[in-house]
Amino acid sequence: MILPTEFAMIARHFRPLAGPGALDLGDDAAVFTPPAGCELVIAADAMVEGVHFLPGTAADLVGRKLLRTNLSDLAAMGATPYGYLMTVSLPRGNPDAWLAAFVAGLAADQAEFSLHLLGGDTTSTPGPISLSLTILGTVAPGTALHRRGAAPGDGIWVSGTIGDGILGLDAARGELADPDGYLAGRYRLPTPRLALGHSLRGIASAAMDVSDGLVQEVGHLCRAGGVAAEIRAADVPLSPQARATDRLIDCLTGGDDYELVFAVPAAHEAALRGLTTPLTCIGHFREGPPEVAVIGADGRAIDIASGGWSHFSG
Amino acid sequence: MILPTEFAMIARHFRPLAGPGALDLGDDAAVFTPPAGCELVIAADAMVEGVHFLPGTAADLVGRKLLRTNLSDLAAMGATPYGYLMTVSLPRGNPDAWLAAFVAGLAADQAEFSLHLLGGDTTSTPGPISLSLTILGTVAPGTALHRRGAAPGDGIWVSGTIGDGILGLDAARGELADPDGYLAGRYRLPTPRLALGHSLRGIASAAMDVSDGLVQEVGHLCRAGGVAAEIRAADVPLSPQARATDRLIDCLTGGDDYELVFAVPAAHEAALRGLTTPLTCIGHFREGPPEVAVIGADGRAIDIASGGWSHFSG
Repeated sequence: MILPTEFAMIARHFRPLAGPGALDLGDDAAVFTPPAGCELVIAADAMVEGVHFLPGTAADLVGRKLLRTNLSDLAAMGATPYGYLMTVSLPRGNPDAWLAAFVAGLAADQAEFSLHLLGGDTTSTPGPISLSLTILGTVAPGTALHRRGAAPGDGIWVSGTIGDGILGLDAARGELADPDGYLAGRYRLPTPRLALGHSLRGIASAAMDVSDGLVQEVGHLCRAGGVAAEIRAADVPLSPQARATDRLIDCLTGGDDYELVFAVPAAHEAALRGLTTPLTCIGHFREGPPEVAVIGADGRAIDIASGGWSHFSG
Repeated sequence: MILPTEFAMIARHFRPLAGPGALDLGDDAAVFTPPAGCELVIAADAMVEGVHFLPGTAADLVGRKLLRTNLSDLAAMGATPYGYLMTVSLPRGNPDAWLAAFVAGLAADQAEFSLHLLGGDTTSTPGPISLSLTILGTVAPGTALHRRGAAPGDGIWVSGTIGDGILGLDAARGELADPDGYLAGRYRLPTPRLALGHSLRGIASAAMDVSDGLVQEVGHLCRAGGVAAEIRAADVPLSPQARATDRLIDCLTGGDDYELVFAVPAAHEAALRGLTTPLTCIGHFREGPPEVAVIGADGRAIDIASGGWSHFSG
């Protein structure tokens, strides 16, 4: 019997990504023993061509971004990567070379972030390329970071720089000058802050990643913690490339940064000093209804019309 | 700040499905302690409108089939359901009533099969409805069923009846008479054989579910076990409704049955007698290259042109 194309495809492309427990992707499911004495952390994200990445994006970058956006969720929880499952829906006629490059991107990031493929599914679709990835991580019991927990007086901190993601999308579309390619690079290949998330356990009182826009994410921390927030716009760290665009509001509300935003009580601030990731305090939480005020350099509130990216608004 | 539509949607529709560890779907990931002394079993399947279900299919049935096809993978491994994550990509303008019905179907099956939602993602898509579900189950260490393990002399057994799935698809399309709606019902709402899978641990030498066509699946058991197989066509159990169509080859090669096919050594056959699921021996494995022979009532081999469903052949 000739092996159908679908199974040959799985054997050729995906089996080399498989790790222990994946049973060579040859069974109905993966079987594994969770590391002893750990809690499991699990999250899933979808990516659709034309929504989450531009048609024509290099396939290796698509694979790596798919994995990295999920790794960013683990980072936000302070978890260590363990493995992932993935479903891939491809248009018929999708070139084999696309899949080869997609898998090469995943292989590179598997090596960089120390995790393996556990299983998944490959199907055809009459629509755009549609990808879904479920990521598994581990964390010592009771140490996971959560969105709830920010208290009045806690500082609001962010890693890296904010706003490169939304500006990078415009650059990747050719709608924004990006002479050194920095902004587009940040959009196409974010860096999950795994080491930082791991270090923040026991230091941060609340944390999440910035995937849908800084102001919106701080709003989530406010609602989860029952607190208000005040962001000092001038203190939000921007890359020189982002600063040059003079698009502060877009930077504050755009998505795709994959930095961490977190709350730190004053008593824990000293513990941040030993960390190597660039960190900036951009404001503080205070008592009040769960709202975010953004304060300009003149001390007046800036009106933020849009709270951030949503798939179904408008 | 007004909560964006996407988050209101998650709160209204999906939060009621969330179980322990899901953190009310309000965090970047779920956190849970795996049941002590268990191995975890994990699988993922995608479903795309127009590929896996007909456009216009009632949304509650879409939700239930999505969950059940994944539960069938757990059944094939002998595992007990624990929880699931799901990504849902919907066209903009998809009616809220669709999502309400989809979730109602999931809620009904969550109750029936004792598992809860752990997390996921909701996005828009310019294409058809695209769903992906990752299911988690547990199994006592070393007891999971596998595709490998069939030995020469083992009987080939199946649960229930074979072929209703492919015929039910034709019936659902209006291309096949289905006076009592039985065939379409079997296509739309398969029954994962969880109790059977659980019972087969220690009895079956190999097992899998019949999702892509019986002959193709037996071929997988052959390749995994390094054995040949002989199926007696007349012994393959067909429902009266399927038998009336006189489409034996379609029944043997069609997909979507979600019955179990498994290998049982002669010494273990007696242990099958106490099981309540209808079971039929349809042939046996033998030494030889990993090929499947289908033998007709006249003792001659039946030529099976197509081995079963593949997403990318042809």
